[in-house]
Amino acid sequence: MTKILDHGYLQFIEKWGSDEAIIEAARMSTAKGFLGWGARCKNCKRPLGGESNWISCPNEGCEDAGAEPGDEKLLRFLWENKHSTPFEMAGLTIEVKAPILVFREWHRHRVPFGYNEMSARYVPLPDENYCPTVARIIEGAMKAGGNKQAQGIDGKVPTDEETQRWLDRLMESYALSQAVYEEGLAIGVPKELARCPVPVARYSRMRATGNLRGWLAFLQLRTAPGAQWEIRQYAEAVALLIEERFPRTWALWDEGRP
Amino acid sequence: MTKILDHGYLQFIEKWGSDEAIIEAARMSTAKGFLGWGARCKNCKRPLGGESNWISCPNEGCEDAGAEPGDEKLLRFLWENKHSTPFEMAGLTIEVKAPILVFREWHRHRVPFGYNEMSARYVPLPDENYCPTVARIIEGAMKAGGNKQAQGIDGKVPTDEETQRWLDRLMESYALSQAVYEEGLAIGVPKELARCPVPVARYSRMRATGNLRGWLAFLQLRTAPGAQWEIRQYAEAVALLIEERFPRTWALWDEGRP
Amino acid sequence: MTKILDHGYLQFIEKWGSDEAIIEAARMSTAKGFLGWGARCKNCKRPLGGESNWISCPNEGCEDAGAEPGDEKLLRFLWENKHSTPFEMAGLTIEVKAPILVFREWHRHRVPFGYNEMSARYVPLPDENYCPTVARIIEGAMKAGGNKQAQGIDGKVPTDEETQRWLDRLMESYALSQAVYEEGLAIGVPKELARCPVPVARYSRMRATGNLRGWLAFLQLRTAPGAQWEIRQYAEAVALLIEERFPRTWALWDEGRP
Amino acid sequence: MTKILDHGYLQFIEKWGSDEAIIEAARMSTAKGFLGWGARCKNCKRPLGGESNWISCPNEGCEDAGAEPGDEKLLRFLWENKHSTPFEMAGLTIEVKAPILVFREWHRHRVPFGYNEMSARYVPLPDENYCPTVARIIEGAMKAGGNKQAQGIDGKVPTDEETQRWLDRLMESYALSQAVYEEGLAIGVPKELARCPVPVARYSRMRATGNLRGWLAFLQLRTAPGAQWEIRQYAEAVALLIEERFPRTWALWDEGRP
Repeated sequence: MTKILDHGYLQFIEKWGSDEAIIEAARMSTAKGFLGWGARCKNCKRPLGGESNWISCPNEGCEDAGAEPGDEKLLRFLWENKHSTPFEMAGLTIEVKAPILVFREWHRHRVPFGYNEMSARYVPLPDENYCPTVARIIEGAMKAGGNKQAQGIDGKVPTDEETQRWLDRLMESYALSQAVYEEGLAIGVPKELARCPVPVARYSRMRATGNLRGWLAFLQLRTAPGAQWEIRQYAEAVALLIEERFPRTWALWDEGRP
Repeated sequence: MTKILDHGYLQFIEKWGSDEAIIEAARMSTAKGFLGWGARCKNCKRPLGGESNWISCPNEGCEDAGAEPGDEKLLRFLWENKHSTPFEMAGLTIEVKAPILVFREWHRHRVPFGYNEMSARYVPLPDENYCPTVARIIEGAMKAGGNKQAQGIDGKVPTDEETQRWLDRLMESYALSQAVYEEGLAIGVPKELARCPVPVARYSRMRATGNLRGWLAFLQLRTAPGAQWEIRQYAEAVALLIEERFPRTWALWDEGRP
Repeated sequence: MTKILDHGYLQFIEKWGSDEAIIEAARMSTAKGFLGWGARCKNCKRPLGGESNWISCPNEGCEDAGAEPGDEKLLRFLWENKHSTPFEMAGLTIEVKAPILVFREWHRHRVPFGYNEMSARYVPLPDENYCPTVARIIEGAMKAGGNKQAQGIDGKVPTDEETQRWLDRLMESYALSQAVYEEGLAIGVPKELARCPVPVARYSRMRATGNLRGWLAFLQLRTAPGAQWEIRQYAEAVALLIEERFPRTWALWDEGRP
Repeated sequence: MTKILDHGYLQFIEKWGSDEAIIEAARMSTAKGFLGWGARCKNCKRPLGGESNWISCPNEGCEDAGAEPGDEKLLRFLWENKHSTPFEMAGLTIEVKAPILVFREWHRHRVPFGYNEMSARYVPLPDENYCPTVARIIEGAMKAGGNKQAQGIDGKVPTDEETQRWLDRLMESYALSQAVYEEGLAIGVPKELARCPVPVARYSRMRATGNLRGWLAFLQLRTAPGAQWEIRQYAEAVALLIEERFPRTWALWDEGRP
């Protein structure tokens, strides 16, 4: 489990498929399967034990015919030519705890994804809200160049002291929201209405599942410099999960990282 | 434009397809097109001017051969046998203003839908929050039978006075949230962070587009008695739009309404 | 690997998720996890060792409080109320060899599926064509009642001898198609054009992946009596794979089988 | 209706949305609407009557403040930054007659599309098969450079005479397939089985519907030089329909054409 922001996390639940399975699926078109990573001898097809350097064939009795690349070449071809269906043969399920404002962006990724989230209609949401740090706010406000979303209005940058005072006010607001939420629940206001004052910074939890093609598209948008810093922390944690489990596919994605 | 809740609305933008186009698409399988609604003479195939009652053929020179049903029979067959692809040949685009807590449920409808929503990263959200009425809260709390979401905790029902007092507190909470939001924006907190205190009852706006198959599935879930009353108001407004534009399909859906 | 029709097969490649994972995902909404299958003591929550019969609690020191159902109750509730997103948390990848005419129907299942198929643009398709048996043809022709697709024209039923003669003719047609295909390839007609004479009965191969929600919808349509017998053989083989790997979900689907 | 190949066509049925509607949807995020194409005066916001050249403001009483670009700038921004959801607010329904081998590729485009096709289970398919021209075959065989699919085996190129002889053989094969198909139907072989000998070059018909985002992705793949020439003819006809109805979006797509 990776801790993210002040109260959030991202936890691996399950993966399916593999870099090899992607090759196997792609090879359906030519009726072949996975042949192996790394350079092979052109003559005997046995591995040469190195990916890129030419080495004379160490296999006894083999007439040295040069090296040919392994299946990493096909994986790169698929990736670079956007043959994306083989990347639907693998996938990832995770559990995430994040502020509602992050989930609101996350859920725009629709098609190859499924979500099951905590519901304030069923259970009162625990009193945990995202509180940005002073540094996050000031750095955000200072950011320039084509990222108006992150900027303050009119390019203003708050001082440390101003920021700290604002965070105190934010805590006041969180506290009042929570008090009103609890008061409503206590007198019998239905949960689905008592939640009205809950702020968008409130943490929620979900399971998210999707195929690798979908996750890579998610990463493309949500690790970009223009993405909100908070969702980028989650996206980078997803990227790490993918790096460990689909290292060759991840490397191709990483090359083209924004 | 239909007004919904205290500050919301639903507005028709565009539709495509029609009941007739659904028949035309379905008839691709047998290489025929739309033949007409209403009973036809079995012999001369001309309309008999009534849908269900047998009437002897009024067309001169026609040997009376009895009536056969029009394309309403095929539409019913498609619907009842879940041949759903023809219903993808029509659709609807609308504009909606609703509280974030309604949009959070709405956006779970993923596949045949597209959404473009107002973004608090780009513009400060106007200070409008959903405020349920006293009657809504008390009726919600009194609701029994398998709808635990709408109920208060332990089956408690608040009095009129308690409810009114809670609504006053809710307004206090909204006011403080807004004050802190504006204070943040004023000192230069980036919009994407200044929004932290904004409550889930805050109104937002979006365009939503989807095919008719998708909208009917949306209605199925969101007009059901178990759906939250607030989203049901929007779903019923969508149902009205569909009734006006796809009356025969709507009638079939309406028959099976939960 | 399950052999299907004269040259086809269906092979399990991989599954993800489980009946338990479906419950875990559904429980996100109430912030709980998988609690266990089978009846539990209401008091000590320990399993009673039977699913449906009330048994007094065998656990020492436990005051007998009656039994409560295990998570099979929630699974049934999800299923019966079409809460289908938790069923997107599991899935299945298979490899299939089937006639093109079967794949043409299969590929209409679009949204939660991915396919990678052999391509006649890349490799010549091996000379294997589906040849129905005499019994299949005659039974098909005799079928009555609302299944016009399976019937012969005008309700005619061929005799054994007629059928056998027709199958001989079919073989002639297959042989000529293949000869022309090979002649084209031999003189240098591009593979993508040389395939023109290949019949829709030609076998092809693919990997297919999808989530459990998608597979159950596939089964719903393709195990139905109105589905073509050939694709039903594949659908039943998919059903067996699901029965072994998701037995509780499968049982619920099986109850409502057409 | 555009005639394509020897017996095929592509016919416009309906469109929804427009370049303007795409802008309107995108502007939901900033709570604005469509402002207008073409340069505007920075001061009075009235159109300057030219898209790219600076012209001093012709409006009486306006202090000349320079020009600012119209909504074509936002459309380009959306396109270049892959903000693709606004392009889901428009779409196109068409009718297509094409060989089965073309439909087999077409139907791989799954998610934002719906299809209703003629079914050989319901009606005997008319006796029309695609017959490539001599020129198409020879040009295909001569094509070099990274397009192995289009090439003949071992890079062979057939002569005019060889090609013509092969086409005669192809006709023989088509004729025998059709004879066997009809013989089957005549003795009562069910339509769904009698179709076994039908070649993949047989024409079929369908309605296809999809949103603009989907159609542009379809064009991306199916107008590419590596796409089979036959489906490219259909894709170019789709491109023309889009050019007429969504000219500004089309122009952006056309700039980046493969």
